[in-house]
Amino acid sequence: MTYCVGLLLKEGMVLLSDTRTNAGLDNIATYRKMFLFEEPGERIIAILTAGSLSVTQTTLARLEEAIHAETEDTPSILAAPTMLQVAEIVGRTLNAVSQEVADKLTRMKQAASASMIVAGQRRGGAMRMFLIYPEGNFIEATEDTPYLQIGEHKYGKPILDRVITPQTPLADAEKAVLLSMDSTLRSNLSVGMPLDLAVIEKDACAVTRSRRIEAGDAAFAAMSEAWSAALRDAFRRITL
Amino acid sequence: MTYCVGLLLKEGMVLLSDTRTNAGLDNIATYRKMFLFEEPGERIIAILTAGSLSVTQTTLARLEEAIHAETEDTPSILAAPTMLQVAEIVGRTLNAVSQEVADKLTRMKQAASASMIVAGQRRGGAMRMFLIYPEGNFIEATEDTPYLQIGEHKYGKPILDRVITPQTPLADAEKAVLLSMDSTLRSNLSVGMPLDLAVIEKDACAVTRSRRIEAGDAAFAAMSEAWSAALRDAFRRITL
Repeated sequence: MTYCVGLLLKEGMVLLSDTRTNAGLDNIATYRKMFLFEEPGERIIAILTAGSLSVTQTTLARLEEAIHAETEDTPSILAAPTMLQVAEIVGRTLNAVSQEVADKLTRMKQAASASMIVAGQRRGGAMRMFLIYPEGNFIEATEDTPYLQIGEHKYGKPILDRVITPQTPLADAEKAVLLSMDSTLRSNLSVGMPLDLAVIEKDACAVTRSRRIEAGDAAFAAMSEAWSAALRDAFRRITL
Repeated sequence: MTYCVGLLLKEGMVLLSDTRTNAGLDNIATYRKMFLFEEPGERIIAILTAGSLSVTQTTLARLEEAIHAETEDTPSILAAPTMLQVAEIVGRTLNAVSQEVADKLTRMKQAASASMIVAGQRRGGAMRMFLIYPEGNFIEATEDTPYLQIGEHKYGKPILDRVITPQTPLADAEKAVLLSMDSTLRSNLSVGMPLDLAVIEKDACAVTRSRRIEAGDAAFAAMSEAWSAALRDAFRRITL
């Protein structure tokens, strides 16, 4: 499985993904699930993926191919005039690939699907963030619901529900997605390190900060340990 | 949906269930999901239920009928010599009811299933706790995994993973299941108040304490608020 989360805040967007991919329980590998497309100052598009690797890889490969050799049928996400159109291109591509794979798999009585988070901004436009469903349709993050999740989203939802509002500063937001991931890592083996983190400040139209957090990362381990200690301490102090 | 959790600890067992039942999103009702059978000092059996109400109600009705009119084919859970045999009776009954309902529903291309937690002790025996799957087979809580969950279990798992060990005192265990439920209530609308809590001390072979927590319960609200404040405070103090 996977856990990816994106926050759409006043100050910018914060994105985090894990990298664990498995086919069954005995075939585990590491694959990047965060893809960044940027023309710094002009436009930034981030895509996070969850689901069948055969679907997500082919979808990303087609999107990249279209960037280098755009045709009328296969428009480039970097040439799209709005983020809405980017979401539509990704949705159409995902739907087409899902269909092709499904056609093959139903003959074998198997299924494969994938979902994606698409986030970005182009110069002069607003920051927007979409969750693309396997069928290609999508929903958008709003003031009321400033975050989107794909994959194993339940373990890490309570912390986001408690601390995230559109006004949350970027540093706090970074902390929140890492703690949300930490809860997921602890409770679900199918989500695993390393992690990819990206922060996109409002109107930068570029990745402000990106970081790969490896399994032995001292800062992440310290934060995780401090959070555990703080939770246990808070737990002790609560009275019924 | 539902959230039920049971802890099997050195000092005793702690059980918590919600009561929300829904058929679709516009047909919401309150049904008890915790059923206690006791002969104080002799034996205590608790059953928590999740899943299709038609399956769980019929299963419980048959178990109760068998208590009052035992036959060779329908043994009473209160007469069973061991908790393992109680789990087997519940499993067989659940499987039989599931099959009957499934036969009707497959004709309508629908499905219904249910799972249960069975916990208890008889005089002279050990405390035991089982998770019964829809098919009637089951797993048991152990020292390594001292808790079992059914229904919407993911939101409330991180707090249990962090604080529960077999040595956890009962008062802390009660706090932990309530906070686990609190996280679930906040993040998932299909789980709802009131809650049923039961504490069964080791070797009491009776319910030591049971409590229905209504929607407006001041103590629960205060605990929930204090936990939110403690989490936000802990969050503020964490540094990246």
